[in-house]
Amino acid sequence: MEKFEVHILGCGSALPTAHHMPSSQVVNMRDKLFMIDCGEAAQLQMRRSKLKFSRLSHIFISHLHGDHCFGLPGLISTFDLLGRTAALHIYSPAGLESVMRPWLNVFCRGLAYDVVFHEFDDKASQQIYDDRTVSVTTIPLRHRIPCCGFLFNEKAPLPHIRRDMIDFLKIPYHAINDIKQGADWTDYEGRLWPNAKLVFPPEPARRYAYCSDTCYLPELSGQLQGVDLLYHEATFTHDDEKRALETAHTTALQAATLARDADVGQLIIGHFSARYVSDGVLLDEAKTVFPRTILANENLCVKL
Amino acid sequence: MEKFEVHILGCGSALPTAHHMPSSQVVNMRDKLFMIDCGEAAQLQMRRSKLKFSRLSHIFISHLHGDHCFGLPGLISTFDLLGRTAALHIYSPAGLESVMRPWLNVFCRGLAYDVVFHEFDDKASQQIYDDRTVSVTTIPLRHRIPCCGFLFNEKAPLPHIRRDMIDFLKIPYHAINDIKQGADWTDYEGRLWPNAKLVFPPEPARRYAYCSDTCYLPELSGQLQGVDLLYHEATFTHDDEKRALETAHTTALQAATLARDADVGQLIIGHFSARYVSDGVLLDEAKTVFPRTILANENLCVKL
Repeated sequence: MEKFEVHILGCGSALPTAHHMPSSQVVNMRDKLFMIDCGEAAQLQMRRSKLKFSRLSHIFISHLHGDHCFGLPGLISTFDLLGRTAALHIYSPAGLESVMRPWLNVFCRGLAYDVVFHEFDDKASQQIYDDRTVSVTTIPLRHRIPCCGFLFNEKAPLPHIRRDMIDFLKIPYHAINDIKQGADWTDYEGRLWPNAKLVFPPEPARRYAYCSDTCYLPELSGQLQGVDLLYHEATFTHDDEKRALETAHTTALQAATLARDADVGQLIIGHFSARYVSDGVLLDEAKTVFPRTILANENLCVKL
Repeated sequence: MEKFEVHILGCGSALPTAHHMPSSQVVNMRDKLFMIDCGEAAQLQMRRSKLKFSRLSHIFISHLHGDHCFGLPGLISTFDLLGRTAALHIYSPAGLESVMRPWLNVFCRGLAYDVVFHEFDDKASQQIYDDRTVSVTTIPLRHRIPCCGFLFNEKAPLPHIRRDMIDFLKIPYHAINDIKQGADWTDYEGRLWPNAKLVFPPEPARRYAYCSDTCYLPELSGQLQGVDLLYHEATFTHDDEKRALETAHTTALQAATLARDADVGQLIIGHFSARYVSDGVLLDEAKTVFPRTILANENLCVKL
C-alpha cells in the first residue's frame, strides 16, 4: 500500500493545556506532506514527529481563529532560515493574506521563497488542490466564522503487474508502464492478452476527511459517505450540548452519530475542551454510538 | 530573602530545535511576574513552569525579531479565554503596536482587557517601569535592528525587626512599620533608642540583567558593574567569531569576558545556535574566562 498517514500535531481546543496543543496535523501522502491548520508551535510538533520540512508545500487552514493559525509566522520564518526556495501555498477562507502579509513584511523581510495565498469560498464545496496522487476538496462547515473542512481523495493507485505473466510472455521492461496504465499485450505469436490477465487489481483509492471546527451537521453524511478515516471535532460531552450549540462546536455523541450515518471506516475525535481532566469520557461517549472511534493525541500517527 | 527568580522558558536562537525553544523568560519578583521576550510557545512553557498567568501584567520585548515575538498572539488570546480583565502592558522598541493591533483586531476581537503598548527609545538607557519593589531600565544593545536589554533593579528591602528589642521595650504592634521605615523609638521612661538598635540591616538590593540579542559590547561593563545575575546571549563559540560579527551576535568567550569585566555574581549564557550538538562547548569556553557561568535551559529556575 502506498503511504497515506495522518500525523496529529495538536488536538486541543483554543486553550492549550499541559496535555494538548492547538490544532494542527500533517497528512503524509506518498512522502509529500500536507498540513491542515497551524496552531502555535506546529513547527515544534512537526520536528518532534520527525516530519521533513522540505516535503511540505501546501497548508490548508480551516478558519481564521488563532488556535488554527498562530503557528504560521514561526513556520514560515523557520523555512526561510533553513534556506527554502520552493513556494509555499496556503489555502484558507478569505482574509488570511491581508493579516499575514504585514507580519511577513516585518518579521520575514527579504523572504527567499514565495508564500502564495489561495483564498477559497467557504459556502460551497470545491476542489482546491489536485496533483497526480491526490485531490483536496473543501467541506463547508458551520462555525462562528467562515470555516471549511478538507477531504483528501487519493487517486486510484495503479494495478500491480503480475510477474508470472510478464516472465512467461517475456514482456520487455519498456512496456510495463503502458500495461500498468491499462494496455493489453500482443505476444510474439500475435496472440492478444487482455490487460486483466496481466495485472492484479490495485488497492481501492482511500479518502480522509477533516472536520473542525463546526457544530453538528447531520447533512455532512452525504459528502462523507464511506470515507476511510474521519477526523471530527468533539469539543464537548453531550452533557454540555448547550455549550456546544452556543459556541458552534460538536459533542462526542454527535461526532459518532455522523460517523455512523456516513458509515466511515474509522473516526478520530479531537479538539478537546480544556474542561475535561481525561479525554476518556469523550471516547466512551462516542463508542456507545460508533465503536470504531479512537482519541486523537499529540504525535499520534494513523495509517489509512 | 524576598523571592527574586528567573525562569528560563526558551533559550534557543531563531531556529527552534528538539532541545531549545525560542527566547522567553519570566522574572518572579515577590510573586509578581515579568516576562522578557515572548518567542513562539512561551505560553505553553509558562504553563510547564507552573507560573500563574494572572500574576503577569508586564512584558518586555527586546527587539522585533520573530523568535522574540511570535508567542504574543497566543498568550494574549489565552489571557482573554481565561477571563482576564487587568490591563497587559507590553514594552518594546518602536513598531510593535502597528504590527500587533491588526492581529488582535482579527484574532482577538472584543478582547475584554486592554493591551497597552509602551514603545521606548532604543538609543539611550532609560527607566521604563517602576513600582514599590522593582524598577526596570533599558540596556541599549547593538543588533541588526533596534534592540535593548533590561536591568531589573530591586528596591532596597526593609530592615528586619529585632524581636528581642521589641519585646524588651514592649513596643506596640502599630509602631513596627515606622521602625522598619527608619524611625527611632522613645520608651516609656523617655529614653531615645536609635533605629540602628531596633533593626538588623536588610539584605542588599539585587540586580538582574538580560542582554540578548547583541554583538559583544565591552562598554556594557559600566552599566552592568556588580549585577548579581547576568543573562547574556552566547550564540556562537569563538571559532565562529566572524559569523557572530556578521549576524551581530556574541561568542561564549566574549560573554564571559563581559561578565568578568563587569564583575557580576553569576553568568547564564543562552540563545544557543542550532549548529552545536551540545551546549557544553559553549559552557567550557565561557568558564575559561569566567568560572561562575551556567548554561540556560528550558524550565531552569535561577534564584538571586
